[in-house]
Amino acid sequence: MAAERVAKTKKLLKLTVDTGIDTREIVSGIAEHYEPEALVGRQVLVLVNLEPRELKGILSRGMILMAQEPSGKLRILRPDEASTEGAIVG
Amino acid sequence: MAAERVAKTKKLLKLTVDTGIDTREIVSGIAEHYEPEALVGRQVLVLVNLEPRELKGILSRGMILMAQEPSGKLRILRPDEASTEGAIVG
Repeated sequence: MAAERVAKTKKLLKLTVDTGIDTREIVSGIAEHYEPEALVGRQVLVLVNLEPRELKGILSRGMILMAQEPSGKLRILRPDEASTEGAIVG
Repeated sequence: MAAERVAKTKKLLKLTVDTGIDTREIVSGIAEHYEPEALVGRQVLVLVNLEPRELKGILSRGMILMAQEPSGKLRILRPDEASTEGAIVG
């Protein structure tokens, strides 16, 4: 829903995510791979059942699931067609 | 790499998958959601570190990770751009 760089960091983005069960903030270390404005409106896979973790003063409530290529490049994962928010991965 | 229906079943497809580490057969219960010919050449997410399991006489060596919508509809998950086979999800 929204994405912005976390001040004074190179790697971190603060993402506002509609999980289908709630709206939450997630801090993700993908700022070197994706521009924040390129993420708004896109579907992602989210691990929602993690302990909240404070990063740079922001409470991060989950993780974005990514694929890491051997080169180190990170790619977002998404359904092959737009899905209902809250679809369960398994 | 290849996909076909498992004889005498409604739900099962036998998929031949390049995991980046090997080529293996995976039996997946998605035949009511995807035609086999629609899957050939597509990238998918695979759980590779499971115990092999025999299904209808075929040794299935993994699972395809899917998203299930509240309606029950299953969707394949894939990277937002074509990735190197063997990219690690995490």
